[in-house]
Amino acid sequence: MRSKFITLTLLLVGSLSAMAQQALFSSAAVKSPEINPDNSVTFRLYAPKAVTVELTGDFLPEKTPVVKMTEDSAGVWSFTSDILEPELYSYCFFVNGMRYLDPSNIYQNRDVATWTSIFIIKGDKGSKGDLYSVNDVPHGNLAKVWYESPALKLNRRMTVYTPAGYEKGKNYPVLYLLHGAGGDENAWSELGRASQILDNLIATGKAKPMIVVMTNGNPNCAAAPGEWDFGMYQPSFRGGVRLPQAAASMDESFMDVVNFIEKNYKVAKNKQNRAICGLSMGGGHSFAISKRFPDKFDYIGLFSAAVGIGGDMKIPTIERMKADAEFNKQMEALFVKNQPKLYWIAIGETDFLYQNNKDYRDYLDSMGYKYEYVETSGGHIWRNWRIYLSDFAQMIFK
Amino acid sequence: MRSKFITLTLLLVGSLSAMAQQALFSSAAVKSPEINPDNSVTFRLYAPKAVTVELTGDFLPEKTPVVKMTEDSAGVWSFTSDILEPELYSYCFFVNGMRYLDPSNIYQNRDVATWTSIFIIKGDKGSKGDLYSVNDVPHGNLAKVWYESPALKLNRRMTVYTPAGYEKGKNYPVLYLLHGAGGDENAWSELGRASQILDNLIATGKAKPMIVVMTNGNPNCAAAPGEWDFGMYQPSFRGGVRLPQAAASMDESFMDVVNFIEKNYKVAKNKQNRAICGLSMGGGHSFAISKRFPDKFDYIGLFSAAVGIGGDMKIPTIERMKADAEFNKQMEALFVKNQPKLYWIAIGETDFLYQNNKDYRDYLDSMGYKYEYVETSGGHIWRNWRIYLSDFAQMIFK
Repeated sequence: MRSKFITLTLLLVGSLSAMAQQALFSSAAVKSPEINPDNSVTFRLYAPKAVTVELTGDFLPEKTPVVKMTEDSAGVWSFTSDILEPELYSYCFFVNGMRYLDPSNIYQNRDVATWTSIFIIKGDKGSKGDLYSVNDVPHGNLAKVWYESPALKLNRRMTVYTPAGYEKGKNYPVLYLLHGAGGDENAWSELGRASQILDNLIATGKAKPMIVVMTNGNPNCAAAPGEWDFGMYQPSFRGGVRLPQAAASMDESFMDVVNFIEKNYKVAKNKQNRAICGLSMGGGHSFAISKRFPDKFDYIGLFSAAVGIGGDMKIPTIERMKADAEFNKQMEALFVKNQPKLYWIAIGETDFLYQNNKDYRDYLDSMGYKYEYVETSGGHIWRNWRIYLSDFAQMIFK
Repeated sequence: MRSKFITLTLLLVGSLSAMAQQALFSSAAVKSPEINPDNSVTFRLYAPKAVTVELTGDFLPEKTPVVKMTEDSAGVWSFTSDILEPELYSYCFFVNGMRYLDPSNIYQNRDVATWTSIFIIKGDKGSKGDLYSVNDVPHGNLAKVWYESPALKLNRRMTVYTPAGYEKGKNYPVLYLLHGAGGDENAWSELGRASQILDNLIATGKAKPMIVVMTNGNPNCAAAPGEWDFGMYQPSFRGGVRLPQAAASMDESFMDVVNFIEKNYKVAKNKQNRAICGLSMGGGHSFAISKRFPDKFDYIGLFSAAVGIGGDMKIPTIERMKADAEFNKQMEALFVKNQPKLYWIAIGETDFLYQNNKDYRDYLDSMGYKYEYVETSGGHIWRNWRIYLSDFAQMIFK
């Protein structure tokens, strides 16, 4: 039967190329990106009528973020990068100045309202590129799960990773993994490669098998854009879409998430088996949730966190913190009474929230509150957040 | 706390727009597509340096599948469509002849190696556009689930829809929903809007709450491109990627899927509670699986099916079928001994597999085997397959 179906499939293929909607289909004749044996990468675009074709990508030096591509006699423009370190990279073309994704590459990520072409330099076992790749290891499942949030008066969606072998296990610890402003419950599994990182760390024994809960951190939204009944709106940092008002804040409503998970999954329901971390706004949420519920989480991670209290951002964080009695009471409950096993702060040296985080660390230091601190190169970027998740996941539940 | 976080978020937003990787971000200043009150649609693209900008979309007449857009003095090109029927539509631009997705629209679907911008005209309650939209109804969960296939010697991935309220229910019926050539386990949930269709039909009582299992119909692949350890290859109808050989065929291996589902989900394990259907190659699989296992499925759906037996496609289907003793024995076991409650064949009048299906119906007629037949307008397109799923889902398990 098998060979017969192959014949039929070939027939189908021939016919599909002649189908009515052919105009909708592209014909990408070139190979791009091509990862060369030395881990340089060649990008190609067939654009015979173009006047200029340029490339930008996060592998290019900061001083020359846009490079010109060169046209050959067949109308194929190309550029070969330097040798690249193992990593997940993003790029796009500019054709006559217009931003253009690589039509020869189906792999792309959306960040807020922007799609970008991506590729991975895999590298050796254990490298970052390897950690972000789908490898021949047992895989956890990834589910889009709806739950009731009484506090937000919404039926909402979250993304839940259950580790390989979950059916047979019990008493799993749970990591609550929160996204940043402009993101949603898809951000960590897509841009953050959370499934791949967890699969690979668990398979090599570097992380404990755990459930990872990726909530939606926008309390006025039920789910990612287009995935709830608000319709297919264009997300934006700059407003433009008039979304509903939230019934409560992220930290006020967060126990709805924890309660749902602890009711419906095979988890250990105690502080030692709960971790919370997040990036940027989600780091701010982790900060706020952990002090609002000081006896709930033993592992707290702030990745490039927006650590905010008080409305007036012109007053330095530390002064606002020192002056806020309620804040100091919460912090004492967390750090003195409950003493989390790990309070981990990570940020890049060029992050625009660097000073905000330094102020916060100064406050923690002045109070003698225990935390660990990691400073990396780079700024407010997913490349750092993938590293922070990879590191944090290896430190928790141990 | 809430107002404080809003302030912080605004600060964040301001800073993000100045972030280092800004060159990777687009600035889509125009609204596109804009669905007008009369359900005409205006498309816009900011392209001040372009010489020509055209639009193609599956809402345009077959005779004029590509239309010119008009530039205003600000460099914004636009086109307004006729009034459109409620439906999910696909489109893209051509800028100076190069295919270009709409940068103002984050919503897009991938079909094999091609991304296309999409939008929905929602229309009235119960219309197709409404059926394909996320509405304010209880939602089922959608999970990417890994399972062992002993027949294929692979750990493989499938997509599983569990209806709203699944935690509380039991003995659910199961629909096995199969994709076409070039597709994968993501095809029905993305291009096919399966979650939305099922959510909406179940919420209005038009379909029974059911589990929907969307397998990967390529027995040589563990999962969709980029989602297994073969790496981030470019899928293609024309070859190019040398994928591994399969250890068995789709129909030979299919009981691995059924066994996994019946072991791990709360399902009724009998013929009356199993349905199988698929599009194109997946229709061929449904045909092949249902006759290989004639006592397993009470509901069988062939959507634009590639109904193939015998290697030589030059010989008409009916002649090959009449001459094949093994085939006739299987068909007798299915139609005479087991008598499925519904054997449903649907195809579009311009589908390239129309004659193949007609031959097959002639065979069924000549044998007196009972089936139902629906003929629609149009060809081998997702628009038809969404309709067929919507119709088939309302006829099963009743």
